Amino acid sequence: MDIGKTLWAIAEGYIPTGSFSETPEFVSHEALCVLNPGKTDAELEVTLYFGDRGPAGPYRLEVPAERVTHFRFNDMKDPEPVPRDTTFASVIRSNVPVVCQHTRLDSRDPHIAVMTTVPFH
Amino acid sequence: MDIGKTLWAIAEGYIPTGSFSETPEFVSHEALCVLNPGKTDAELEVTLYFGDRGPAGPYRLEVPAERVTHFRFNDMKDPEPVPRDTTFASVIRSNVPVVCQHTRLDSRDPHIAVMTTVPFH
Amino acid sequence: MDIGKTLWAIAEGYIPTGSFSETPEFVSHEALCVLNPGKTDAELEVTLYFGDRGPAGPYRLEVPAERVTHFRFNDMKDPEPVPRDTTFASVIRSNVPVVCQHTRLDSRDPHIAVMTTVPFH
Amino acid sequence: MDIGKTLWAIAEGYIPTGSFSETPEFVSHEALCVLNPGKTDAELEVTLYFGDRGPAGPYRLEVPAERVTHFRFNDMKDPEPVPRDTTFASVIRSNVPVVCQHTRLDSRDPHIAVMTTVPFH
Repeated sequence: MDIGKTLWAIAEGYIPTGSFSETPEFVSHEALCVLNPGKTDAELEVTLYFGDRGPAGPYRLEVPAERVTHFRFNDMKDPEPVPRDTTFASVIRSNVPVVCQHTRLDSRDPHIAVMTTVPFH
Repeated sequence: MDIGKTLWAIAEGYIPTGSFSETPEFVSHEALCVLNPGKTDAELEVTLYFGDRGPAGPYRLEVPAERVTHFRFNDMKDPEPVPRDTTFASVIRSNVPVVCQHTRLDSRDPHIAVMTTVPFH
Repeated sequence: MDIGKTLWAIAEGYIPTGSFSETPEFVSHEALCVLNPGKTDAELEVTLYFGDRGPAGPYRLEVPAERVTHFRFNDMKDPEPVPRDTTFASVIRSNVPVVCQHTRLDSRDPHIAVMTTVPFH
Repeated sequence: MDIGKTLWAIAEGYIPTGSFSETPEFVSHEALCVLNPGKTDAELEVTLYFGDRGPAGPYRLEVPAERVTHFRFNDMKDPEPVPRDTTFASVIRSNVPVVCQHTRLDSRDPHIAVMTTVPFH
């Protein structure tokens, strides 16, 4: 089934330093959910943009065929870690159509806040 | 009136185990709101995708003509229940055009958090 | 400038009864924000859909040329009030292109929760 | 890379007066995130719309090539400041394709609430 797109962009990105808990599910994070509904493994290249310097990347991610992966920008380390408390944006390119969703969980306060949207495509 | 689409995808899915209350309206949930604005009953097939295993489904749902139904992934049990604390995604196919919206209410903390978006289509 | 669409649909709707405060800005509400960027007054017809009965409406709303209005479903009373604690959906038709956004503020708890999305169009 | 659009509209806008903290990151704000993924600096013109008066603007913003900027409506002062506790909407025009995202952080209560969406385009 060929639902999805091969080019996506998220203009919003910001990982606050603080979290009320170090339990992974409650650490403040920005997530990139990627569904690969097709029969071919997806190879993604993510480029990060910032306010005061040139782009970073590509960060290489993979989503196997007929699988979904929730990546956290927090965990992207290669070629360089994603800075905290810093405005960033991202562009995602895939070799096959995928479906993306962007989610932030903010746990600076123990009463967490969440938000989500389907990125531009 | 033919507003709507017959193919939708939600890349984000996660039902946390905990809820501060067992009152249905406050139980942590992921909801799939489906509006069928047409004159023909809608028959939906939902396929679920996971991170570490193959797809599940189809889950069969129905939305009568000119009605809206808010399904909770929590309640989908056939052919198998939706696991908790687990990343998933979904693809929704309908025999007639429908309009979907995705909503999560997170009540692990009594100060609930909510988020919503129109899924990819 | 002709940015906008004349047909919109919101599959999600739910106005909880409770609010921690009766101050208008903090009353739990579902809002339909409508921007009319054009030079002609917009006349809207909103049809509401439910889970267990037929549609209601049309509710008639007006947005003057080059103005924005944030309607609350809470306040729609003619031809009939919008029920509380009830699932609903809405379809919005306009005589001229308009831009819609859907927002919910949930203040059952004093620590409010908010969510927003651009409706289907 | 030519991902993006040159015309965007956000029908929702509201900056509450109160914030539990004056730390910039926690001040209640409406943000317009703009990614310029191209090789040419972006020059934006933002027009604001209100409920009870004519439009204001244009507000002129710039996003350098291959950079992202998170503008706050709170900070837009020229040709006139954005009023607080007031409904507004915005239309954004750019000379080159850009990607926008709309975010609100509401910190009237110390337990912040957040929401985000990709604006109409």
